Amino acid sequence: MTSTTNSTTWQDLVAAKQQECKQKIPHEWQLSAEQLALAQKTPRLLEADIPRRSGILSDLELDITENYTASQLLDKLASGQISSLAITTAFCKRAVIAQQLTSCLTETFFPQALERAKYLDEYLQQEGTPIGPLHGLPISLKDTFCVEGVQTTVGYTSFLANEPAKTNSALVEMLLQLGAVLYVKTNIPQTLMYTTQTADSENNIFGRTLNPHNTALTAGGSSGGEGALLSFRGSILGIGTDIAGSIRIPALCCGVYGFKPTTQRIPYSGQVNGNVQGMPGIAPVAGPLGHSIADLSLLMSSVVGNGQAWEYDAAVLPVPWQTVPTNGTGMLTIGVMADDEHFPLHPPVKRALDRAIAALTKAGHRVVRIGGRAEELSLAYVSRLAFQYFVYGPRNDHISPSGEPAVASVVRGASPMFSGSFPVEQGLEPFEMIQRLHMARRRVDEAWREMWVGSKLDVVLGPGAQNTAVALDTYGWPPYTVLWNLLDYPACVIPFGKADKELDPEPVAAGNDMQPSYIPEQVDGAPCAIQVVTPRFQDEKCLWAADIIDKVLATYGKE
Amino acid sequence: MTSTTNSTTWQDLVAAKQQECKQKIPHEWQLSAEQLALAQKTPRLLEADIPRRSGILSDLELDITENYTASQLLDKLASGQISSLAITTAFCKRAVIAQQLTSCLTETFFPQALERAKYLDEYLQQEGTPIGPLHGLPISLKDTFCVEGVQTTVGYTSFLANEPAKTNSALVEMLLQLGAVLYVKTNIPQTLMYTTQTADSENNIFGRTLNPHNTALTAGGSSGGEGALLSFRGSILGIGTDIAGSIRIPALCCGVYGFKPTTQRIPYSGQVNGNVQGMPGIAPVAGPLGHSIADLSLLMSSVVGNGQAWEYDAAVLPVPWQTVPTNGTGMLTIGVMADDEHFPLHPPVKRALDRAIAALTKAGHRVVRIGGRAEELSLAYVSRLAFQYFVYGPRNDHISPSGEPAVASVVRGASPMFSGSFPVEQGLEPFEMIQRLHMARRRVDEAWREMWVGSKLDVVLGPGAQNTAVALDTYGWPPYTVLWNLLDYPACVIPFGKADKELDPEPVAAGNDMQPSYIPEQVDGAPCAIQVVTPRFQDEKCLWAADIIDKVLATYGKE
Repeated sequence: MTSTTNSTTWQDLVAAKQQECKQKIPHEWQLSAEQLALAQKTPRLLEADIPRRSGILSDLELDITENYTASQLLDKLASGQISSLAITTAFCKRAVIAQQLTSCLTETFFPQALERAKYLDEYLQQEGTPIGPLHGLPISLKDTFCVEGVQTTVGYTSFLANEPAKTNSALVEMLLQLGAVLYVKTNIPQTLMYTTQTADSENNIFGRTLNPHNTALTAGGSSGGEGALLSFRGSILGIGTDIAGSIRIPALCCGVYGFKPTTQRIPYSGQVNGNVQGMPGIAPVAGPLGHSIADLSLLMSSVVGNGQAWEYDAAVLPVPWQTVPTNGTGMLTIGVMADDEHFPLHPPVKRALDRAIAALTKAGHRVVRIGGRAEELSLAYVSRLAFQYFVYGPRNDHISPSGEPAVASVVRGASPMFSGSFPVEQGLEPFEMIQRLHMARRRVDEAWREMWVGSKLDVVLGPGAQNTAVALDTYGWPPYTVLWNLLDYPACVIPFGKADKELDPEPVAAGNDMQPSYIPEQVDGAPCAIQVVTPRFQDEKCLWAADIIDKVLATYGKE
Repeated sequence: MTSTTNSTTWQDLVAAKQQECKQKIPHEWQLSAEQLALAQKTPRLLEADIPRRSGILSDLELDITENYTASQLLDKLASGQISSLAITTAFCKRAVIAQQLTSCLTETFFPQALERAKYLDEYLQQEGTPIGPLHGLPISLKDTFCVEGVQTTVGYTSFLANEPAKTNSALVEMLLQLGAVLYVKTNIPQTLMYTTQTADSENNIFGRTLNPHNTALTAGGSSGGEGALLSFRGSILGIGTDIAGSIRIPALCCGVYGFKPTTQRIPYSGQVNGNVQGMPGIAPVAGPLGHSIADLSLLMSSVVGNGQAWEYDAAVLPVPWQTVPTNGTGMLTIGVMADDEHFPLHPPVKRALDRAIAALTKAGHRVVRIGGRAEELSLAYVSRLAFQYFVYGPRNDHISPSGEPAVASVVRGASPMFSGSFPVEQGLEPFEMIQRLHMARRRVDEAWREMWVGSKLDVVLGPGAQNTAVALDTYGWPPYTVLWNLLDYPACVIPFGKADKELDPEPVAAGNDMQPSYIPEQVDGAPCAIQVVTPRFQDEKCLWAADIIDKVLATYGKE
């Protein structure tokens, strides 16, 4: 613990931390005032192409960061075609540029990363074989993960007094064993979206993460730094966590791929989030964000592997990553949820979904409308039950102790309660509450199982949200992602298409102040996305089907 | 609901139920007064060989019930060598004899069983192929399982008003789909051992289940009816449930094999037990009792199969039954826990364990002593944490409403609290209590993981209890079984050897009234057992290793 005098304000602590972070960025990787000014004038930041203009990255480094999948880079690394030092340097540089433009990072540890890259290059040269399946690949981490020697504050000023981590999180330890290079941690919202269900990655230490597609729109959260960094191609593969959509929301806001696995498959332990532990509720899960389904699968299959991840985290089940048995035809039965009157899709999202359905039908897949009269199958009901799980128990307040204010999106909060009443009566004593919530959830689980088995579904296809990335601090409650957290179903977000004010020129006002309105001018050009889901623990099948669907969309999905 | 007048006593209700049960037993399967008298004079009931003396079973029926494993019977069934009707009739008859001598049954439904056996015989004849992997095999069920049209009272007089089940439990539905014939449900303790941790299968409706090896000793519980019925060979394969040892205690008391799987592998839903649902704690699990490891594996591999069990119960994970990769040498690294001063082994149990260790060492396996200074690795500490999970929350009282008394073992109760203090302070408010218990349990999980990985163990070998079957109502707290429930590790009980007053002539007095003393004369001839354990979800490996160990014991384990 660092001791502070009574006269030290939270602002002083933050200023010191910001200074410390800034000093870790090499001078030669800093953007000029001119480049910064240009970026500020260009909301569609990606179009300004600052990495190329800056001169900070060589042509080779631009090529490395822009034109390959993680799997392709790993092939080059394993064959010695390119060094880990070269790849790591390229992504460090690009991450630093992303940071200067979007505040997507929290901690950086470039010297350690470059040192490790050199070690791995030497290892390969001496041993003639890679150290593991992720040999030499830089991977970015959400701030919640602990890396030995690096501080974990998750954006709470009160956590600035914490010592640097003494041990690695279980997944961090595994990634290192598998050969990865770790170089940055990424920005998150104050409270991590847990206690307030907001999706804007802003906090008083590391600022607000901006969306590189359009800096006037949210980058999403809580893994918002990952979303922005990947979108900027400052990372080839990133690790986020998801309890209500925290991997998938930044993925869909920032136009990248994101996968929320089933719980008990990827090590989660050893992270810092400041939340109350062990209350019955919705369990958070770690998972990848990336540039392709193949890269998400790479991360999952490497970590799950032959089932060894339990050796790092007792909460993980020792089940190997499995090959999906093909069903002969290669054709999927795809369930599509009926629209929910309370959470109507914005026109660009509906357009993308309809176009995906048309493409899949054209490619020969079977699309069936699902649903039923049971309230347990309704998006709004499950949303409300999920919400009740988030709010029924005790919470830790890490904001007040330091005197820092809550950020705007935390003050605003979000809730689905405009859509109906609490599934379980409020005000029950704790044991009764826990039992009643449990019974309600079991009914949801069973209703979905029966529907799934009865309809012989392979996957469910739906939107990732009602909306695309929207104006800052207006994202609202995330029904389309949290549904799959309550059910603990694996879910993959696939970027698909873009909002277009010409195609969807009519604004749509939300019926309440909990949801964003559709404002064509504002979101024009924002990425759209779809979401692919399978039942619990069918992660392999989810990614397998997502890959089939992604390829169909590439072929038949043109506007 | 049946309506009763105020003047109807609980005794009247029980008498009516007992009469109903008795009337379902065909006259020609009833033992003579002479045979009953002989049995009463012979505590070592198996030695009296009543099934042979009674003349109720033909020679073929005696052969069917005595000389085959379930797998062997299934081969004969599938090839048409023997009919399901013949096998079902044989086990119905033998179960009825067992019932008359040991009160091991609750409900019987012989007409339905014989009808189904005929149907399956016809099916095989017409289709030329079995209906499923359990085609034609009779399987007995603990009373908690619901079978359509059959009442589930679990021994509570207050449940006698309940209607017969309208639907099958999920596992019952699966067993039928797999081809099994269901014919009896089996006896359990009042409260099912859940709220009082007693192991005697006695209740006011169905009486007390006696141990066929020695009717003066407990049959164990809570699946005590299964233990006794199997021991009497009135069942070839039975289904119990286990939350603290309820499959393994009757197995070790009655000298049969029993397997407690990891949770989330075998459907559990749709049972009746009257307990509070959904509180964080130790989850119960369904699993097999049988006459060989091969038969336990048969049940597990048939139900888990290719991962389809989730289609019957949303709480089951869709993970296929897997082939255990051989490690080349076929040799195991076997961890043996250090003795716990609070729970010393009775001499015959210690003798059996030592003899097993010697045999395994002789056969070339590596035996290592495990343990450590962390209290989380200690049997007594984990026992106390488990106990705290059983008692911290609300409980349902289904005894008082009917006016029936608690049976002796329920009044007595059992607890490990003589071994130390509560791991978590008592009297905390519910949310705080749940969190603190959770954190303590996580530490236990992690300590065992670290020890297991650090010692490179394949399995842990230990006793199933301090004691063999002991005098009625003296079983006490079950530390050696409940440990693996808290950890959710799969655990297999293998019968091995017998208590012998000549070899262990010295009595050992328990240091407290919570544990049974060793009284050589009393337990002479009682079965001994060992227990084989693997980490969570390594059920395949547990049974694979148990089979190796069982075979070593058969070869090298002679006294």
